[in-house]
Amino acid sequence: MEMALAEAKKGRYLTYNNPMVGAVIVKNNRILGLGHHLGFGYEHAEINAFNNVSKQKNIRDATMFVTLEPCSHFGKTPPCCREIVKKGVKEIYIAQTDPNPLVAGRGINYLKEHGVKVHVGAREATSRKLNEFYNYFYQNKLPFVTLKVAQTLDGRISLAPSHRTYLTDDKVFEDVQKLRADYQAIMVGSGTVLADDPLLTVRIMKLKYSPVRVVLDRRGRTTSKFRIMNDQAPTWVFTENEKMVVRFADSPVKVFFKIKWTLKEIMQQLAQEGIQSLLVEGGAVIQDAFLKTTLMEQLIIYQTDQLAGGNSLSAFQSERDVQELITLKLIETKRVGNALRISLRR
Amino acid sequence: MEMALAEAKKGRYLTYNNPMVGAVIVKNNRILGLGHHLGFGYEHAEINAFNNVSKQKNIRDATMFVTLEPCSHFGKTPPCCREIVKKGVKEIYIAQTDPNPLVAGRGINYLKEHGVKVHVGAREATSRKLNEFYNYFYQNKLPFVTLKVAQTLDGRISLAPSHRTYLTDDKVFEDVQKLRADYQAIMVGSGTVLADDPLLTVRIMKLKYSPVRVVLDRRGRTTSKFRIMNDQAPTWVFTENEKMVVRFADSPVKVFFKIKWTLKEIMQQLAQEGIQSLLVEGGAVIQDAFLKTTLMEQLIIYQTDQLAGGNSLSAFQSERDVQELITLKLIETKRVGNALRISLRR
Repeated sequence: MEMALAEAKKGRYLTYNNPMVGAVIVKNNRILGLGHHLGFGYEHAEINAFNNVSKQKNIRDATMFVTLEPCSHFGKTPPCCREIVKKGVKEIYIAQTDPNPLVAGRGINYLKEHGVKVHVGAREATSRKLNEFYNYFYQNKLPFVTLKVAQTLDGRISLAPSHRTYLTDDKVFEDVQKLRADYQAIMVGSGTVLADDPLLTVRIMKLKYSPVRVVLDRRGRTTSKFRIMNDQAPTWVFTENEKMVVRFADSPVKVFFKIKWTLKEIMQQLAQEGIQSLLVEGGAVIQDAFLKTTLMEQLIIYQTDQLAGGNSLSAFQSERDVQELITLKLIETKRVGNALRISLRR
Repeated sequence: MEMALAEAKKGRYLTYNNPMVGAVIVKNNRILGLGHHLGFGYEHAEINAFNNVSKQKNIRDATMFVTLEPCSHFGKTPPCCREIVKKGVKEIYIAQTDPNPLVAGRGINYLKEHGVKVHVGAREATSRKLNEFYNYFYQNKLPFVTLKVAQTLDGRISLAPSHRTYLTDDKVFEDVQKLRADYQAIMVGSGTVLADDPLLTVRIMKLKYSPVRVVLDRRGRTTSKFRIMNDQAPTWVFTENEKMVVRFADSPVKVFFKIKWTLKEIMQQLAQEGIQSLLVEGGAVIQDAFLKTTLMEQLIIYQTDQLAGGNSLSAFQSERDVQELITLKLIETKRVGNALRISLRR
């Protein structure tokens, strides 16, 4: 299973909203074939493992290790379960069941019904961690939300609202680029667009699927002159200003209009669009909105060795009176460039 | 010299505004005697080392290692230089000269003039570090100032001004108690006194000299009903309200009144009172005042795994418009109780 997990990891940055999956076929203590899922629309890991075996008839009575329950439905590819039965696999070890309701135990049932000996749960925690966003999404029907903050020692993100302050260095930029590549969508508020005019793309590697850039612009203050509205990656705007629909009618930008959007509704809409993971990159008011809801799962802070003080802008700031503190769980602290990278979980 | 430095360290928490000093007497590769300064008013390290030697006549032609230049003046005790010459020490290794203008090279000159072979500079950096506050004080004629902040991940110190919010746990409390014991004075603002009613004493160890509790209360809002005004340790109040002089006339509290105090003037007054080191423990406005001046040398943050957000109170907060960031030098990060202890230097 260790080997199957290693195989699965090869699919990083490739599988989009499909999970990373690895498969290994073993017989008489020898490995016949290895495979991993190469990406959305491509063959699944099991099929790739089969294709990797030199003598197909050897597969009969072999044992298979696969990190995720084989699928039982016709999606972009035919169901793997049938193929496993057809090839004559005798025994199968599955790390975790597939939380996707299209599968969710049906694959395992099919295999059992067709005489394959099934074991579930080997290295399950590792497999779940590998496809954390995918698992979270199907369990909660919401995207997994990570807040990313670059701040000073005293928790400030800029000298003043609508002022762009450069805090972090190239090493942090690179780290954030890698972070972005793991998410299906990246969100900012209109204030950040107006103040910083960010691109919000991943430039350090060529991705098959660029994260969707999501702009929360209730008042409708953004226009197509901002860089985030270009065609380098998809852009979606959530707004309560109906004029935005017309403003972006002839552009690739997708506008989601509603008289009143709650943050939860926006998350539900994103889930409906298939967004399993969301990285929120500011500004202060949006971060604070995620803080007071329970929609945030992870927080990553890049804290520089600087101080701002005075009336400068805090990372989580709004007019809201605070009733209680939220306690997170520290996962890791690590030096990255000119900042301390602090990772926490809810 | 290594041994002399180890000896010097035994004087920690004892020497008050005197430096920690260690001395070792060596002859024919054998140690004749060891000594350290036991505290304000007591014998100096050199004399203790002499007294530690069993046969006094052996000292003749011996070599001495001492972490600080031997004194040349009559203070609470007679000058060590004379004693060194009188005992017949042939050669002396001194880690650093004494920055105290009463000595400052005179000791070394006296020794040289009386035929002692003098070497200065062995392990100088370590000795300077050992008596960092003492050295800083005589070089700058100001106390060495450390800001101590207990804050959330987003740099907040309480849910609202004048609201006492408990952030840190017992382990941090203990760490702060030890920190306090190293300083000659601890400062807070009147806002902190009114909101938290702190004692600001060192309770985890019995100190010969309790740090002086300094309250900055320009408007004169504090009274003797607050715990900080008790007689468990000296308390000094800096105020611009003349009524405070009368209010504390019959109390052990010492009032420093002036129509207008700048922070620099307060630091100069403390220096004049012999305060070599100051730990500033809040609140937000005072910390911010230290930030914008160049009076701060060190910052120690205890950062918990909590978030506050909204309009809660920041560690360094005032109405001041911020023009530029201050970049500090990260010295150490360490887990202490429920917080990350981040130490930085200017």
